[in-house]
Amino acid sequence: MKIAVLGAGNGGQAMAGHFSLLGFKVNLYNRNITKIREIQNTKEIRVIGEINGLASIDMVTDDIELAVRDVDLIMVTTTADAHSDIANKLAPFLRDNQIIVLNPGRTLGAIEFSHIIRKNSTKKVFIAEAQSLIYACRIEKPGEVKIIGIKDRVFFSAFPSTDTDYVIEKLNAVYNCFIKVENVLVTSLENIGAILHPAVVLLNAAAIERGNLFYFYNDMTPSVSKFISDLDRERLMVGDSFGIKLHSVSDWVSYAYGKVKGENLNEKMQNNPAYYKIQAPDKLNSRMLMEDIPTGVLPIIELGKLCNLELPLLNGVLHITQSVLSCDFRLKGRTLENIGLGNISKEELLKIL
Amino acid sequence: MKIAVLGAGNGGQAMAGHFSLLGFKVNLYNRNITKIREIQNTKEIRVIGEINGLASIDMVTDDIELAVRDVDLIMVTTTADAHSDIANKLAPFLRDNQIIVLNPGRTLGAIEFSHIIRKNSTKKVFIAEAQSLIYACRIEKPGEVKIIGIKDRVFFSAFPSTDTDYVIEKLNAVYNCFIKVENVLVTSLENIGAILHPAVVLLNAAAIERGNLFYFYNDMTPSVSKFISDLDRERLMVGDSFGIKLHSVSDWVSYAYGKVKGENLNEKMQNNPAYYKIQAPDKLNSRMLMEDIPTGVLPIIELGKLCNLELPLLNGVLHITQSVLSCDFRLKGRTLENIGLGNISKEELLKIL
Repeated sequence: MKIAVLGAGNGGQAMAGHFSLLGFKVNLYNRNITKIREIQNTKEIRVIGEINGLASIDMVTDDIELAVRDVDLIMVTTTADAHSDIANKLAPFLRDNQIIVLNPGRTLGAIEFSHIIRKNSTKKVFIAEAQSLIYACRIEKPGEVKIIGIKDRVFFSAFPSTDTDYVIEKLNAVYNCFIKVENVLVTSLENIGAILHPAVVLLNAAAIERGNLFYFYNDMTPSVSKFISDLDRERLMVGDSFGIKLHSVSDWVSYAYGKVKGENLNEKMQNNPAYYKIQAPDKLNSRMLMEDIPTGVLPIIELGKLCNLELPLLNGVLHITQSVLSCDFRLKGRTLENIGLGNISKEELLKIL
Repeated sequence: MKIAVLGAGNGGQAMAGHFSLLGFKVNLYNRNITKIREIQNTKEIRVIGEINGLASIDMVTDDIELAVRDVDLIMVTTTADAHSDIANKLAPFLRDNQIIVLNPGRTLGAIEFSHIIRKNSTKKVFIAEAQSLIYACRIEKPGEVKIIGIKDRVFFSAFPSTDTDYVIEKLNAVYNCFIKVENVLVTSLENIGAILHPAVVLLNAAAIERGNLFYFYNDMTPSVSKFISDLDRERLMVGDSFGIKLHSVSDWVSYAYGKVKGENLNEKMQNNPAYYKIQAPDKLNSRMLMEDIPTGVLPIIELGKLCNLELPLLNGVLHITQSVLSCDFRLKGRTLENIGLGNISKEELLKIL
């Protein structure tokens, strides 16, 4: 199996390095090639941490046509707000039976991707999304990436879900972490980044802009945690309306980090070693808002509308962020209209999943 | 003319002292008498600043019946979230023709007060509201209040507005600052505290809770100012819908502080000497939220509903604050229902003003 990894940030470099060390041929694509000049020169990535080795990369390129020409599997590891751009660039060069996986899809990623591909290509490809990135990782220096951890269990679904078994079977030849869920609504609504990130940034907005440093998780306060729990309740309501029992943020922290102690979300946030000393973003328009609002908060609100839910807190986060950042996320974000589902009903949506 | 001042905070002490020095007999009432024990003992307030002198207070009491028994004018100087409590306590002891003035009314204060009085008393009293407190003042130490400034122009209306001329004539025997406006919708919607205070607190919520100190106005950032301007636009829309041309926050700062320089709201906030070095509140549940939401943001939203306006930012502020503080301001705040105007239409409201 030959693989293209699209997006050479932390996740993309970890994945490309890991694949190579597992013996697969890997092409690594980045839209901005200057960011990975070192890797382009050496065609190597040093992987350290959970996995160790010097990985050879077959091709390092900013030409998406070359990157995906001969591959069986296309792993998309860009931020989710780049998915539509990647889909548009990718569509003309697809071949039948290629598998495309969004790592992760955030909310409605696979549906958006599929909409763009099908508008621009007649090829029969498989499109799927993971609930989160498989790796906890970070680039240590140019050409070197540290894999801090590899997840044991990552929810996974293709769109449509009739493709899920086929795609998981192919992928679990490499990984064995992907857990099949009912459909992409589950992977989409388990996007807790949408609940966690914008809430913390918004209630710290002026502090961030003034340049006051703080730790994103460890400096969480009781009122912020209270707000996150209330906001999360709106996400859980959307899940309920679609018949999906989701994990709450608090349950998810316990699920993902088994040994974290705490009576409530705030205590868990402060007691989780994986969260120690993670700096908050130093600017307001970081991906904590620029990615999480258009590919998380907004599509969750859109799904809620299909169920006639009001969601005042999610809407508050959306509108206040739009004001603070002077932008309109509805223009390019994942509204149902923008991903090809204008005027769909809840029942019709459930049918096409 | 004999006067009762209800509420002995900064404003109440300044007003009681000023009245006394002007030669009027003054009763000073506070619900919690221990807070003004010094004044109760000496029956004197030392006034410094714009006005200087040692003022005699006729009566210092926590008995509202005694405070208002013989007076012609009742000046209410409590925070606006105490108006309903004061109205309930006051109603049984009113006499015909007494004048009650809310300093200030915040939003819909006179209507709320009138609703409670008329439910509990058959006496014909006059009820009016000022747009802001006449004084810039602060208590320097027990028994001493500093009057930093006395405003030249304060918008004023009675409810109903047919009483305004009579009340202003009586008041301007003392003051000459009160400017008659069309009705209490003008004084109510010129409440810019509702726009300014919660916005700053919310975007600094986590910083306040972590105990990071900052200056409320001088540490304002461009994004916060942008948000305030957008939020203000919703208030202006409500005014427009009622046919009222309101001052924007930015225009108001220029209007109230003539010499303040600045191209935009953020610059004006940082350049206004009156705003220098004013500390932000050191707790989340200060009057910046606890007063301004139920007597400002909430009733402005309620008025907007009468005009079929959506007001997503004001609603965002309301709902997020309710979550952060774990309270429901609709229970006791100024909803139209709570102030006796349930099911009123915009046209009907305009008729009773």
